[in-house]
Amino acid sequence: MGFRATSTTAGIKESGKPDMCLVVNDGPHDVAVGVFTRNKIRAAPVEVTSANISDGHLRAVVFNAGNANACTGEQGIKDARDMASDVSSFLHCDAHDVAVCSTGIIGDHLPMECVNAGIDALSRGIDSTNASSDDAGTAAAEAIMTTDTVPKQAGYAGEGWRIGAMVKGVGMISPSLATMLCCITTDAVVDVDTARDALRGAASTTFDRLDIDGSTSTNDTALLLSSGASGVSPSPDEFAHALHQVCNDLASQMQSDAEGVTKRVSIKVIGAANDSEALVAARTIGRDNLTKCAMFGSDPNWGRVLAAVGIADVEMDPHGISVSFNDHVVCRNSAAVEGSRDVDISGPDISVVVDLGTGSQGEATVRTTDLSFSYVEINSAYTT
Amino acid sequence: MGFRATSTTAGIKESGKPDMCLVVNDGPHDVAVGVFTRNKIRAAPVEVTSANISDGHLRAVVFNAGNANACTGEQGIKDARDMASDVSSFLHCDAHDVAVCSTGIIGDHLPMECVNAGIDALSRGIDSTNASSDDAGTAAAEAIMTTDTVPKQAGYAGEGWRIGAMVKGVGMISPSLATMLCCITTDAVVDVDTARDALRGAASTTFDRLDIDGSTSTNDTALLLSSGASGVSPSPDEFAHALHQVCNDLASQMQSDAEGVTKRVSIKVIGAANDSEALVAARTIGRDNLTKCAMFGSDPNWGRVLAAVGIADVEMDPHGISVSFNDHVVCRNSAAVEGSRDVDISGPDISVVVDLGTGSQGEATVRTTDLSFSYVEINSAYTT
Repeated sequence: MGFRATSTTAGIKESGKPDMCLVVNDGPHDVAVGVFTRNKIRAAPVEVTSANISDGHLRAVVFNAGNANACTGEQGIKDARDMASDVSSFLHCDAHDVAVCSTGIIGDHLPMECVNAGIDALSRGIDSTNASSDDAGTAAAEAIMTTDTVPKQAGYAGEGWRIGAMVKGVGMISPSLATMLCCITTDAVVDVDTARDALRGAASTTFDRLDIDGSTSTNDTALLLSSGASGVSPSPDEFAHALHQVCNDLASQMQSDAEGVTKRVSIKVIGAANDSEALVAARTIGRDNLTKCAMFGSDPNWGRVLAAVGIADVEMDPHGISVSFNDHVVCRNSAAVEGSRDVDISGPDISVVVDLGTGSQGEATVRTTDLSFSYVEINSAYTT
Repeated sequence: MGFRATSTTAGIKESGKPDMCLVVNDGPHDVAVGVFTRNKIRAAPVEVTSANISDGHLRAVVFNAGNANACTGEQGIKDARDMASDVSSFLHCDAHDVAVCSTGIIGDHLPMECVNAGIDALSRGIDSTNASSDDAGTAAAEAIMTTDTVPKQAGYAGEGWRIGAMVKGVGMISPSLATMLCCITTDAVVDVDTARDALRGAASTTFDRLDIDGSTSTNDTALLLSSGASGVSPSPDEFAHALHQVCNDLASQMQSDAEGVTKRVSIKVIGAANDSEALVAARTIGRDNLTKCAMFGSDPNWGRVLAAVGIADVEMDPHGISVSFNDHVVCRNSAAVEGSRDVDISGPDISVVVDLGTGSQGEATVRTTDLSFSYVEINSAYTT
């Protein structure tokens, strides 16, 4: 595909697990585009990477897990730049053609001795024959994990061209629970504008609609790199469609591996004035702790769904809202339907559909999870 | 004070505890004002009460706990009106001079047989000599409890006039965790406009700034009734000041009794462009589940505070934010201060101060709590 990957254990993670990796684009093209966190507090690697990718080109991306290099001031920026520069040295490219992605604890400076030793190891690994294998990709996906329990990869095979992708995180571009880092590679020939439109479009309907707890990471980054090695140019529509499939697959994997998840919950809002208002309403329900606790308890408490959506700043008919759980209507015209308390939502997947009753056709779906004891445990028991 | 109260056990609560009460204003004045939930989904008693109080006068308020009469359609409105009408019959007043407040499960119709029997008992109790005692007030405060663990009352003694108040709920006018119902009585002589301004002002800086989980009840109601029985007319400023003290006391009691609380957390934002932006920022931090989990774990994880505030749609200097926990500065210029991870926040009260670094003087404080195992347990284990 025109890409190589390698990973190493640099000693940044306390667990002693692999914590750095490198993805190199061997061309012939070096198209690269990215989407980043919308948090105003942006980590140093986000600042450096968004600057470096602004011209639409990258040769490589270096990742570390265990330390987010966020809220680290001028020193953090210098550390991120040094990482790019050190990688560019052995790749014989410009430092501006290297992206840096970090995830882990916020507020501590990167342990640069570990990082430097890690980059040395990556420089050796990237030249091994193994670096072009599928195993190298999986190892890289493992090296970027934090509270993830499984590595997450997805792919797409077009006619003579492919997309490969890895992601870590149980969050999304915005908002997110833990940092989402995503690296997508393709050997398709795509220009910068096509790549950018496709990534923005795919992210907005997949990563952006995965909402675990309404928090947004300082480090969220999704990158798309094209080598053009296949020599095949899919149409913009075909490429966008394929990229959406890959991102949707990754978003689904992140939902399933969200911190403390016991239920995968899909919230679909219909009958909104327009799609944007449907999305606002769906997000509002998806972030409501009382609704999420009810899901954890397998309690078909539709009253909480109504109370949640009633706060959303969107048009609705307060007396004409319908709710269904797993295709059973539990509330019609904002009031109970006979037997609504008996609907079974004890399985791992819960589908919630809310009709706002405006008579218009606006609709949107978000993925979320329940709020469980494990979520509280994971997020209170240690500094992440 | 010109008020009587009585309570009874009508059988609405499954626990068999007292669940209805009545507060009657014996005048000579019958001034009454209220503030209500901002949720678009308003329970039937909110609809009926906000209509009945719109002329600035009420003779009585009837409360029930155990069933919110919310999301109950036309039947719910009829039931709430019947409650007002039945109370007005034995008080020999107009049904429009009676307010109705309900709290409890959403979506079930009121058990009107129980309610009617309860109103019969209230009609007898209100004529007993006990109805003017302090004990009657405390019993009423107990009868409106749901997941509250203690009855909540507050008072103020002016020169020759008084305020008394009871509240249930661990929430606030907007937003709220569980319904907040509040009844404030005074024997001061106040006109409707003075009363309304004072209540709105007090609520906006007390109940409105208590934010447990960002949820908003369908039933939140705070009423202020004046009998004028003292014959004393405090100045509008004096009255407003006293009312603020009472509401602040009640808000503090609700924070301490919030569902699953193990920490009382105060979030003060300073250095914002103006007070409104400070409030938006403080609320955003107060609702962030990751920050709340860190508080539960006594983890001085200021990075989560920064990540949370970075989502707020307000002006800030991303590189110039300061954070302190319990008066120890842990973050300056958006980066760690030496020893920041060692600050002790293991006590039951945590004070968080965030300076947005705009150079302006906008500030605001909200009260919140941690996110604990108990919160999840209370809200997942049963239908409330």
